Amino acid sequence: MFITFEGIDGSGKSTQARALADHLRKAGREVVLTREPGGSPGAEEIRRLVLEGDPDRWSPETEILLFTAARRDHLERTIGPALAAGQVVISDRFADSTRMYQGLARPDLGGTVDRLHDQMIGVEPDLTFLIDMNPALGLARALGRQGSEERFEDMGEALQSRMRAGFLALAAAHPGRFRVIDGARPPEVVAAEVASIADAALARR
Amino acid sequence: MFITFEGIDGSGKSTQARALADHLRKAGREVVLTREPGGSPGAEEIRRLVLEGDPDRWSPETEILLFTAARRDHLERTIGPALAAGQVVISDRFADSTRMYQGLARPDLGGTVDRLHDQMIGVEPDLTFLIDMNPALGLARALGRQGSEERFEDMGEALQSRMRAGFLALAAAHPGRFRVIDGARPPEVVAAEVASIADAALARR
Repeated sequence: MFITFEGIDGSGKSTQARALADHLRKAGREVVLTREPGGSPGAEEIRRLVLEGDPDRWSPETEILLFTAARRDHLERTIGPALAAGQVVISDRFADSTRMYQGLARPDLGGTVDRLHDQMIGVEPDLTFLIDMNPALGLARALGRQGSEERFEDMGEALQSRMRAGFLALAAAHPGRFRVIDGARPPEVVAAEVASIADAALARR
Repeated sequence: MFITFEGIDGSGKSTQARALADHLRKAGREVVLTREPGGSPGAEEIRRLVLEGDPDRWSPETEILLFTAARRDHLERTIGPALAAGQVVISDRFADSTRMYQGLARPDLGGTVDRLHDQMIGVEPDLTFLIDMNPALGLARALGRQGSEERFEDMGEALQSRMRAGFLALAAAHPGRFRVIDGARPPEVVAAEVASIADAALARR
C-alpha cells in the first residue's frame, strides 16, 4: 500500500507521516518512510540541484523535468521495490505537490505535468492525506522551524492561501484517494484520525 | 541558423564544430559554439550529475528525463537567445545523440524520447553534420585522447559500430537537415567541405 501526505508548509504533514509510520510498525507492519523531492540517493542529488541556489535558476519547464527525473528514480529505487516486497510505503509529498506548485506558478503547464506523469511515472498513491491548515497558522509554524531549505516558505501568507486552495481542489478532483484532515487540532488528535483511516484502508485490502 | 554536429566518439565532430565556428567568425558572422550535454551553467551541472559516478546509477528513463531537462535549460539560456539575436549557433551534439544512444540501449523507449522532445524541446537544427567514421579508427582516436569523461567510450568497437549505424539511420530518416560527411579524411579537408555546405546554407537564408 502506497500512502502519501500532502499539505502546505507548516501543516504538520511530515510529523504526521512519521507518526503513521510509527503506528503501523507498532502494529507489526513493515514500513518504508520516504519523502519528495528526494527519497533515493539519486533523487536526493537532483533535489539539491533544484532547491539550492537562485530560485530563478531553473524555468518551470526545466524544474518539472528535474522533479519528474527525481520521482522516476525514487519510484524505481525506493517505492517500487518496497511495494513489491509487500511493505507499506509512506511518502512525505509526491506528485500532487508538483501538480499544485506548478498549477499555481504556471497554470498553462498543467497538461504538461499530467502528460509527463502519465508517461514517465504512471503510479498514483492508494491513499493521500491532505493535512489541511489555516495558512496563517501554517506559515507561523513553518517560519518557526530552523534550518528549513524550502525556498517556497519565503513567499508569505497570500501564496500559502493559494497553495491551500490548490491542494483542496486536487482533493476534490480525486475524492477516491484523498482524505482531507483538519491539521489545526493537536498533533496527537490528528495522528489518531490518520491512523484510524489507514488501518481501515489496510484492513480492506 | 542552428547547426549541430553528431558522430561517434573519435569521429572528429568537436574539432569540426570548432573549425566551422572559426570559419564563420572569419567571415564576419557572430557565432555561439556550444555543446551537449551541457551548454549552459545549469545544463553543465546536470551533465555532471549524469556522467559522473557509476554508469548504472540512473535508469534509461531517468537519464532521458535528465538529458531533456539539460537540453531545455540549454535551449532557454544559450541557444534560444543567440538565435533570437541573429547569431549562428553551432552545437557539438544535440537531440540526435539522445535518440541514437537510447535507440541502442532501449529501442522500446524510442517513442518516449520523441514525445518528450516534441513536448519539452520542440526545436530541430536547420542543418546537422554527421561526421561519419570507421568505428575502429574512431575508437583508436577516442582512446588516444586524454582526460575524456565520456563513459560511453569504455564500451568498445562493437558498440561503436552500432552507434555508427544508428546515426546513419537517423540521417536517412531526416534527409532534409542531415549531411553525412566522410570523417576519415584529413581534418582540413573535412573542414573545407563542412564550411562549403554551411556557407551555401547560410547564403540561401
